[in-house]
Amino acid sequence: MLKTFEYAQLNPIELQELTTRNTDPSHAIQDTVLDIIQEVRQNGDKALISYAQQFDKVELEKLYLDANDIDALASTINREQQRALEIAFQNIHKFHSSQVKRERVVETTIGVKCWREIRPIEKVGLYIPGGSAVLPSTLLMLGVPARIAGCKEIIVCSPPQKSGKINGFVAYCLKLLKIERIYLVGGAQAIAAMAFGSETIPKVDKIFGPGNQFVTKAKSIVQGMANVSIDMPAGPSEVLVIADETATPAYVAADLLAQAEHGADSQAVLVATSKDIIEAVNLELEKQLAILPRFELASKAIENSYAVLATDLNEALAFSNYYAPEHLILETDQWERLVRLILNAGSVFLGHLTPESAGDYASGTNHTLPTSGYARSYSGVSVDSFVKKITFQHISPEGLLNIGSTVEILAELEGLHAHKNAVTIRKEN
Amino acid sequence: MLKTFEYAQLNPIELQELTTRNTDPSHAIQDTVLDIIQEVRQNGDKALISYAQQFDKVELEKLYLDANDIDALASTINREQQRALEIAFQNIHKFHSSQVKRERVVETTIGVKCWREIRPIEKVGLYIPGGSAVLPSTLLMLGVPARIAGCKEIIVCSPPQKSGKINGFVAYCLKLLKIERIYLVGGAQAIAAMAFGSETIPKVDKIFGPGNQFVTKAKSIVQGMANVSIDMPAGPSEVLVIADETATPAYVAADLLAQAEHGADSQAVLVATSKDIIEAVNLELEKQLAILPRFELASKAIENSYAVLATDLNEALAFSNYYAPEHLILETDQWERLVRLILNAGSVFLGHLTPESAGDYASGTNHTLPTSGYARSYSGVSVDSFVKKITFQHISPEGLLNIGSTVEILAELEGLHAHKNAVTIRKEN
Repeated sequence: MLKTFEYAQLNPIELQELTTRNTDPSHAIQDTVLDIIQEVRQNGDKALISYAQQFDKVELEKLYLDANDIDALASTINREQQRALEIAFQNIHKFHSSQVKRERVVETTIGVKCWREIRPIEKVGLYIPGGSAVLPSTLLMLGVPARIAGCKEIIVCSPPQKSGKINGFVAYCLKLLKIERIYLVGGAQAIAAMAFGSETIPKVDKIFGPGNQFVTKAKSIVQGMANVSIDMPAGPSEVLVIADETATPAYVAADLLAQAEHGADSQAVLVATSKDIIEAVNLELEKQLAILPRFELASKAIENSYAVLATDLNEALAFSNYYAPEHLILETDQWERLVRLILNAGSVFLGHLTPESAGDYASGTNHTLPTSGYARSYSGVSVDSFVKKITFQHISPEGLLNIGSTVEILAELEGLHAHKNAVTIRKEN
Repeated sequence: MLKTFEYAQLNPIELQELTTRNTDPSHAIQDTVLDIIQEVRQNGDKALISYAQQFDKVELEKLYLDANDIDALASTINREQQRALEIAFQNIHKFHSSQVKRERVVETTIGVKCWREIRPIEKVGLYIPGGSAVLPSTLLMLGVPARIAGCKEIIVCSPPQKSGKINGFVAYCLKLLKIERIYLVGGAQAIAAMAFGSETIPKVDKIFGPGNQFVTKAKSIVQGMANVSIDMPAGPSEVLVIADETATPAYVAADLLAQAEHGADSQAVLVATSKDIIEAVNLELEKQLAILPRFELASKAIENSYAVLATDLNEALAFSNYYAPEHLILETDQWERLVRLILNAGSVFLGHLTPESAGDYASGTNHTLPTSGYARSYSGVSVDSFVKKITFQHISPEGLLNIGSTVEILAELEGLHAHKNAVTIRKEN
């Protein structure tokens, strides 16, 4: 049973409390992560091998697998599974390819030409979580845009399985991406290794990927320490479903549960335009939850979740924009008119037949998305995340005459005489 | 005199040391900034007024100026100065307008449509430094893309002058941008106020703008604390000039000094293809430095700077890409063939007549750029910085049949049964 709140009854403070996600992990995590980072900086590979013993319960002889190992592991999955990964790869590739655009040259004043050119970030680090669920789909979501961007070095870290290897699905994705090495390192230690480099693992320019609280904390710490940037602050996953009387309660419940099974700290929020809908969804939740293999995790997440009763779809959208969900599903016949009203969200699923899980795997959109309200200012991962746009300008003799005095006046008024002189000296010749 | 290093003689460790900028400010700064943030969170406006007494030496009755005050101040500058700000505004506007692009809908599989739509970040905070130099140009560089993006609330903070007001140039820029209020708050306290909100100052979603070490530290701290994001980690400004025998030593020296006058921690690096060029530039530096009003600051910065001797332009480019400069100036006739070799830089100035100061004010490109090597992974500020791109997808009944089983297989292999069920339940009906 979802706790239910009535939107119109919420005062600003209640609204804020209801939509605030816990983004303030305890200092215990921070201290542990700082220790791990320090240890990896000082002892490099030795520290990584020792953490693999401690956390992953494996004795590693070397910290990576190469093409031969990857080939062998990739061949352990069946053709139907390979085919599903290929289709996902193709759809993700097709959508992300559309994100690359050449920009035009703008002559801002006669003789003054300005433009931007795209350059790949040279060295990127992709973190692929292991642990409670191994997520080969995440490797595709990060690897495909990195390949399209043209990144020169793609470093992949993922915790080793008990066997000291990786699973066959991850191996097959590496083959699809033509990545010939994977480092068997997980957790905060993987982030530290990619941020600072070790004997075996190269230092990267930017780190991508989701992870548990330790991984997330490590990413946020190293970005201030190591001249490395990160894709986004990531937190527990979340969905907000907007449903009106045209929605099918069984679909709504299935979507809420797909979010809930990620973990006890996941949040699934239902915003509905009538009490009847909420009741019907609650009934379906009970029914579907009972037969779910990850029943424990999902029921805890449902306890942390809630429903909001809105008077109409516009009010529902107002709540959603305030919440800024990672995933937003519009289960209403009127989805088309609502699109332009959506201001804050990571990825949006439109209509009754577009479940979030389609976007998680195979529609083509990226599933690495801003959580915890960061959708107010962050976009999900795309090819943009793997490139820089460098500005260029060229000024002709005529252009210098046209803007020279403007630059001189403005430099003068800011009291920067050497700035002024860089123009004056050129005008004089 | 610039210290000189020979590129071919540098081993990897020396190369790394030479190109590492100090991005690790002392803990004294961190502790002071944390205190200020805590104080602003707890005491809001009261703390801000008290910091204005302490740091800016003014007694403020209210924390902002409104349209009438701004109008009055704007009219204190002369017509020629107004005109220069207008031209800068127009050029910046023209270039940044070209950055807005509609994206197309991609049908990744028949019946599966995916696209991205752009939404402005609703509330943005712009920090305009005061102190040693007041920079109205920074207000244009941040305000113009914020306006083009369509941000709903644009909060501007800048430290008050001794008069308790702002200068007329900043006021005139506010008028050009149609921004009707400016908050008289500077330093780390301004960043804290925009991150957490006070009685008077609204909390924002993203904070932009350069500043001193305190401002920079505050930005990096609040982004992990307050569900707010920042434009980029900013450090002391820097330029790298590549010069060959076609360069005019007086121009090269003028460009190095324009960087040096920003402050003692600025870095100006010359990469030249012969010893003669370095000697000629050194002579010019001495000559031009002697007559510079900001002589003290600039000479200290020149002491921190250096020259690198490269055997040819390709080697010079290799050093530059390794350094990843905020500003890169190519003073060579061969600039055109070098453009595609530039991998890491913030903004690039091509040829003999394109000084950095043109881009600082009026060419149209943005001057808020990544420093300290962050040009390896960050772009400068653009309209992109003020928007999010939200992904949308819609699946038709045919689309569901086409990708349904792919999603089911992949969800199954990741052990996420509720994800699978969200598709299965829809296929069954």
